[in-house]
Amino acid sequence: MSTQSSEVGRYLAQFVISLEHSGVTHAVICPGSRSTPLSLALYASHLKTYVLMDERSAAFFALGIAKNLRRPTLLVSTSGTAAANFMPAVVEAFWSHVPLIVLTADRPPELRDSGAAQTIDQIRLYGSHVKWFQDMPLADGTEILDRFANITAQRAAITAQQNPAGPVHLNFPFREPLLTVFPDPSTLLDPGPARIIPAQEQPDPQGILLVAQWLRHISQGFIVAGPGHMAQALPAMLRLSRQLGWPIWADPLSNLRGLDPAILGTHDAILRAHAASLPTPQAVIRIGAPPTSKALNQFIAQSLLVVIDAENSYREPMLQEAQILQGSADQVLDELATALSNQTVDPAWHHLWQEQDRGMRAQLAQRLASVNTPNEPSLYYHLVNWLAPLEPVDVFVSNSMPIRDVDAFTLNPGRQLRFWANRGANGIDGVTSTALGMSAVQGQVVLITGDLAFYHDMNGLLAAKKYGLNALIIVVNNDGGGIFSFLPQSQLAEPTFEALFGTPHGLTFEHAAALYHAAYRHTQTVEELKAAIQDLAPLPGLRIIEWHTASRQDNVSWHAFLWGDPV
Amino acid sequence: MSTQSSEVGRYLAQFVISLEHSGVTHAVICPGSRSTPLSLALYASHLKTYVLMDERSAAFFALGIAKNLRRPTLLVSTSGTAAANFMPAVVEAFWSHVPLIVLTADRPPELRDSGAAQTIDQIRLYGSHVKWFQDMPLADGTEILDRFANITAQRAAITAQQNPAGPVHLNFPFREPLLTVFPDPSTLLDPGPARIIPAQEQPDPQGILLVAQWLRHISQGFIVAGPGHMAQALPAMLRLSRQLGWPIWADPLSNLRGLDPAILGTHDAILRAHAASLPTPQAVIRIGAPPTSKALNQFIAQSLLVVIDAENSYREPMLQEAQILQGSADQVLDELATALSNQTVDPAWHHLWQEQDRGMRAQLAQRLASVNTPNEPSLYYHLVNWLAPLEPVDVFVSNSMPIRDVDAFTLNPGRQLRFWANRGANGIDGVTSTALGMSAVQGQVVLITGDLAFYHDMNGLLAAKKYGLNALIIVVNNDGGGIFSFLPQSQLAEPTFEALFGTPHGLTFEHAAALYHAAYRHTQTVEELKAAIQDLAPLPGLRIIEWHTASRQDNVSWHAFLWGDPV
Repeated sequence: MSTQSSEVGRYLAQFVISLEHSGVTHAVICPGSRSTPLSLALYASHLKTYVLMDERSAAFFALGIAKNLRRPTLLVSTSGTAAANFMPAVVEAFWSHVPLIVLTADRPPELRDSGAAQTIDQIRLYGSHVKWFQDMPLADGTEILDRFANITAQRAAITAQQNPAGPVHLNFPFREPLLTVFPDPSTLLDPGPARIIPAQEQPDPQGILLVAQWLRHISQGFIVAGPGHMAQALPAMLRLSRQLGWPIWADPLSNLRGLDPAILGTHDAILRAHAASLPTPQAVIRIGAPPTSKALNQFIAQSLLVVIDAENSYREPMLQEAQILQGSADQVLDELATALSNQTVDPAWHHLWQEQDRGMRAQLAQRLASVNTPNEPSLYYHLVNWLAPLEPVDVFVSNSMPIRDVDAFTLNPGRQLRFWANRGANGIDGVTSTALGMSAVQGQVVLITGDLAFYHDMNGLLAAKKYGLNALIIVVNNDGGGIFSFLPQSQLAEPTFEALFGTPHGLTFEHAAALYHAAYRHTQTVEELKAAIQDLAPLPGLRIIEWHTASRQDNVSWHAFLWGDPV
Repeated sequence: MSTQSSEVGRYLAQFVISLEHSGVTHAVICPGSRSTPLSLALYASHLKTYVLMDERSAAFFALGIAKNLRRPTLLVSTSGTAAANFMPAVVEAFWSHVPLIVLTADRPPELRDSGAAQTIDQIRLYGSHVKWFQDMPLADGTEILDRFANITAQRAAITAQQNPAGPVHLNFPFREPLLTVFPDPSTLLDPGPARIIPAQEQPDPQGILLVAQWLRHISQGFIVAGPGHMAQALPAMLRLSRQLGWPIWADPLSNLRGLDPAILGTHDAILRAHAASLPTPQAVIRIGAPPTSKALNQFIAQSLLVVIDAENSYREPMLQEAQILQGSADQVLDELATALSNQTVDPAWHHLWQEQDRGMRAQLAQRLASVNTPNEPSLYYHLVNWLAPLEPVDVFVSNSMPIRDVDAFTLNPGRQLRFWANRGANGIDGVTSTALGMSAVQGQVVLITGDLAFYHDMNGLLAAKKYGLNALIIVVNNDGGGIFSFLPQSQLAEPTFEALFGTPHGLTFEHAAALYHAAYRHTQTVEELKAAIQDLAPLPGLRIIEWHTASRQDNVSWHAFLWGDPV
């Protein structure tokens, strides 16, 4: 037996050069033995490679890269439970439409289910959470495999990006020897011009007319911009809003707040305080996924609904009377605006909501100015000003309380802060790694996270230490699951509530910062927090600000006070 | 809509009481909202419950409990990526035959794939890595559901334990409200007497005779006790060994080493040093899975092989000429001994291996006595003596280098140390949590782990802090993947080798110890290590000893020196 395989080298070199030609630029590699041929092929390529040791964090790191670049990103593991650790990020990538190409090394078929070491069943390991699975052939020098490697790489990259984008999984069995000799690149197939030319999707003109007809006599409506960067659709959205006299309510993850005075963002606060006394809209045009605000979703649950579903993903959990109109948002909005050009406008309707928005902004400003105890909403309200020196910058937000508080209190992000979150499955896992993956491609990131989410992905911090990534992390530490104090579970008696939902852990993260050589600041008052952000924001590298806030119980009271319950 | 569900309460109370009746005693709960009915039902039961926040670590903690108790253990998560984080431990449980009952909360069917929050596809989420999957009905007050809950609980517990044992997955959709009222237990169905009565497996008498015939004229053989506690089979094994004159080579995880002078354990060292000059056996009777030692597996690869496969798992990766004989090891060995009672014995054969064993023991003792630099084998060689004051105690060993070094150097464990490892998929993930799960049921554990495995599951340490678990953890820190220095990858030039395989991280774990309030000692020499073990072993709680050993390169030289290469 030769000690190095040139058949495998040829096959993988062809595969990788075809991936590069298909627009892949980054690879995240988890170390292992069986994956040696893949690791060597990628390390020898033009791709930017990262080597990370916890596969779960590594997978979210790759997700962060792919999400930010909107480009398929490679993720590589050896055989066994290593590959199983990718599962949470693969699931999130599937539901949030992030293009990942997962490459797992495997034992050859004759060693599967035979008691061989580090051998599990990797066939369709990620089940329904990948768009495409291929069990790759063993490279045995068969000539046709060059062509197979070439076309499979192209197909993987295209499938991962094709609407709706998502993860694909290729499983590579390798026999020993695992050391690999790579050929002279000039002997490989030319991977271009691309042989797969995907079709372009266009909105259905009849569908536009149908929906326009449906909305024809409605003057009291909302436009809701859901989570998902949609700056490209803004001009058409503004045109439609002006034409119809319907306010635009923008989810924080739409990144439209602050871009135009017509865009309102106080819906969560307004509806939590006054939903019962306000008129519901007859119809809603929603762009993208449902908004973060549960109050808004419930308020519009009886309205006629038009979903502009650019990602073909049928996200309509309220099961209301709805038309789901597929196609790119800018095009659909533009064509809808044309079709609805003679709509009757109810000026009082638009005015009502502008006044509500103005009123809530004034109330929040006034009430927040009157308190100086460490209440969580203060962070989210002042965030935009405090981070101004870092602009332009990506701000990653954890699920659970942080994204809800950004929704409720971060009202004027301005043009140079881009907000992100993992809203495919809304998990609190992998938050730190996803943010750091963004820093790897953008050079900087700000992360707002809670103590449970920060604990969950502490291992992800190693990437920052190893690659000198710049990240300012603000950990809002209320010692447990703060969100449950807002939910019906909070009615439960003790010790049940704290045991199952409050789940205090007693951790402070100074030691985590020291472990990964991060700058660290412990803060308690709002002034300390502000000062820490001002001091640490300009520094390079990893910086962790831990903010010990009021009790979880007090936090509920602060929210209620700000939203307008009687003082 | 009522704010509390009594239908769900009734159904789950019946389910949990039937689980208790089926022998389930422990539950590991990961917090969440959708899983509220399950969490409340378990917290109100007689089960011992643990609440842990990182689902990946929690799942390995449950694995450790179930592995140690050999009893089905519950593992509960909410919907979404929380459930996906169980995947690595579920995969390990499947391949190592550990009975887990995974209960995942889910959204009701009408909210699946609809854009609802924290909703993924949980149907067959763990794919081929569970023995049984059931998507549970919604509890709607239908009377027959009491009987369904009763029988499903029994079936889950039996299926998880039935040979080969492994994980099962029940997915519970819940509609709101999630708060639950439980009925008076006297109104529930009596879950006993059990209505499922599994058959008992017996070895095939014709198969025993066939195998005896096959081995009839062979006098030069080995008996190999693979990983897996097999004290029950020891008397029959010794009888067969005496009758045939075949030595018994015991894997460290058989926990037979030191129990009888006939049991040898130096095969890994002997065969690494002298395989080429030693006669191979004509036949091998192997009990259980293949042994840890690659040298032994290769040495016997041309022999006739009898696998005593009590777990019906066909573990025969060398694809040699083999008979796979199913049935419990004690029974099969006993019947084989009877069938082979007149076998001719070759006394020189047994003597040869006893002399080899004696010689290697003397050589290791002599060479280890002559060195005092921090070489990794010293730990494994002296471990048994150093841990004597803790006996009886479970010793959990990480995969990768620690299990190999235990195999090579831990020769006389004695009767009161039980060694364990995760040998289903041989991952380095979840090692700490599995060990801590064992401590939760045994009151104490010793863990020998490497720096990468320790880093991978640092979050698992929270369980020790939260529940005051006793654990003595020895971290052998050689700053990276030490095993690769023993593999062909070590031939690679720099920077490739260190970037992809050595993967130094520069972490020391004093800060991890501080984060979780553990006693900590940094050690470098063998004497410091010994003193730290002596000092910290008697203490309660979590204790971490970090041992900074020689370089990974030097470690290879130390192994070669001890195994007998020319000095």
